[in-house]
Amino acid sequence: MTFVIGHKNPDTDSICSAIGYAAFKRADTGEEYEARRAGELNPETQFVLDHFGLQAPELLESAAGQELILVDHNEKEQAVDGLTEGHINEILDHHKVGDIQTPDPIYFLIRPVGCTGTIVYDHFKKAGLVPEKDVAGALCSAILSDTLAFRSPTCTPADKEAAEALAKLAGIEDIQEYAKAMLKAGSNMGDKTDEEIFNLDYKKFTAGSTTYGVGQVTSVDADELKVLKERMTGYMNNNLEKQGVDMLFFMLTDVLDESSELICAGEGAEKAASEAFTSAEADRMYLKGVVSRKKQIIPQLTEVLPR
Amino acid sequence: MTFVIGHKNPDTDSICSAIGYAAFKRADTGEEYEARRAGELNPETQFVLDHFGLQAPELLESAAGQELILVDHNEKEQAVDGLTEGHINEILDHHKVGDIQTPDPIYFLIRPVGCTGTIVYDHFKKAGLVPEKDVAGALCSAILSDTLAFRSPTCTPADKEAAEALAKLAGIEDIQEYAKAMLKAGSNMGDKTDEEIFNLDYKKFTAGSTTYGVGQVTSVDADELKVLKERMTGYMNNNLEKQGVDMLFFMLTDVLDESSELICAGEGAEKAASEAFTSAEADRMYLKGVVSRKKQIIPQLTEVLPR
Repeated sequence: MTFVIGHKNPDTDSICSAIGYAAFKRADTGEEYEARRAGELNPETQFVLDHFGLQAPELLESAAGQELILVDHNEKEQAVDGLTEGHINEILDHHKVGDIQTPDPIYFLIRPVGCTGTIVYDHFKKAGLVPEKDVAGALCSAILSDTLAFRSPTCTPADKEAAEALAKLAGIEDIQEYAKAMLKAGSNMGDKTDEEIFNLDYKKFTAGSTTYGVGQVTSVDADELKVLKERMTGYMNNNLEKQGVDMLFFMLTDVLDESSELICAGEGAEKAASEAFTSAEADRMYLKGVVSRKKQIIPQLTEVLPR
Repeated sequence: MTFVIGHKNPDTDSICSAIGYAAFKRADTGEEYEARRAGELNPETQFVLDHFGLQAPELLESAAGQELILVDHNEKEQAVDGLTEGHINEILDHHKVGDIQTPDPIYFLIRPVGCTGTIVYDHFKKAGLVPEKDVAGALCSAILSDTLAFRSPTCTPADKEAAEALAKLAGIEDIQEYAKAMLKAGSNMGDKTDEEIFNLDYKKFTAGSTTYGVGQVTSVDADELKVLKERMTGYMNNNLEKQGVDMLFFMLTDVLDESSELICAGEGAEKAASEAFTSAEADRMYLKGVVSRKKQIIPQLTEVLPR
């Protein structure tokens, strides 16, 4: 049995690409593949699974001794615990080339597209296979989530094409309508604690000798983002040590305004941010047009952080 | 202009895949791509280029400031100088996942096949394109070289299929006949110095904190290999420091016997070799069935070397 698994603090792409690629591998090879998750589901992903009547993948506590396929990540810091004692069979991703090494050649594919779901769908297509309705719905949702319904600069024509084909298979009549409901379910902070909100979509990165974490919330409600800014600033200043990184960053992303405000904590973080984002307004890190952590935050930070 | 380039001490795959992928990218995009080389041609590759009337790619002294596509490697130690000051656009390889990181997502494909040439041909095929006769000959030669004419355990059905299709396009009537002539040209040590022979097919690797280098000669002449063993043993013991690695290994590969003898130099090298290859005969490291550095030497050494 081989487990297909996304990153820790899984987002909709990490869960749905795992479900989709496991389904593809089963159909393509007739062998045993199952999706697993490396953490708790966020409310957006729960909405997607409920909507399409899918079971949540089981939690994988440790990768030790397991046969694995990694989707939607290729950095050790983001991977399920015990990775070095597991065996990586394949990696499918759409992020920058990270720090995972293997003892022998494996199938490793990164494509610079908006979503791993797009790459998974391409595997179905090239093999002449068609995903089931529920799997198609999950993959379509992953693309809409990662690209903020085609608004993110990470979105490519391949993503849009895949999402539209998958929507047809999944019986989604109005993509934008569905995306709005899904994104709204995701930004419903309800009675969550500061820590829960901070961890909703949080990832760790390494740039040379510097480790740092970047969280993000997306919302369609500017007032909610103001409240969240206060809460996250407080949380980050008090919990830097607990997160075990040198610096913390957090993106408060306004989907409708297509902008983000960046807040940070840790020695050197503010300096790095102001070096990386020189166009930001002086008093606050308001970044017009910035909604993508992967494309508009990580490369810029990586460039200026001490190696 | 984007340069397509293989590893240092280029072998036939590194040169021919660069030529082939540059031709593919030109045909596929209509934009400017050219092959470059990261070192001197070996006699086998020279034979191939002469046979198909191809120009040798120009030498690239430094990658600084250049747009690059890497083929046939994904380790910094093996790459052209100045890599960190260049911009990597794509990586196409068939080796283990190495240590190259990028600031943003790129097209990065590793497939566990015998030769990068096979992956390059697959790009032509999937795009509905056909390589020119000379390019097909170069790609076919790369596959025959890397798989020792289908004898190596790294050889997959995809390699054989690609080589046979390419041979037809290139007008190679008898694949095994052609491969024999090519491999013979490659193992013609003529009046080469010890250093030249050692560097014919030499690569550096990193395993945690240990750096090591592994060279290889392949020959169809067992007596020649005996002479080479003496010469290489002497060279390695005298030039460990010059190579700038902790340990040196060298494979004397007998193509017809399908075996290799492994010699080594440097503190801990003998211990590592005997731990990694427990089936070897006690008095000499004779490894029956071992012809592939990538599949039968590197993973085994990586496993036992101090991290």
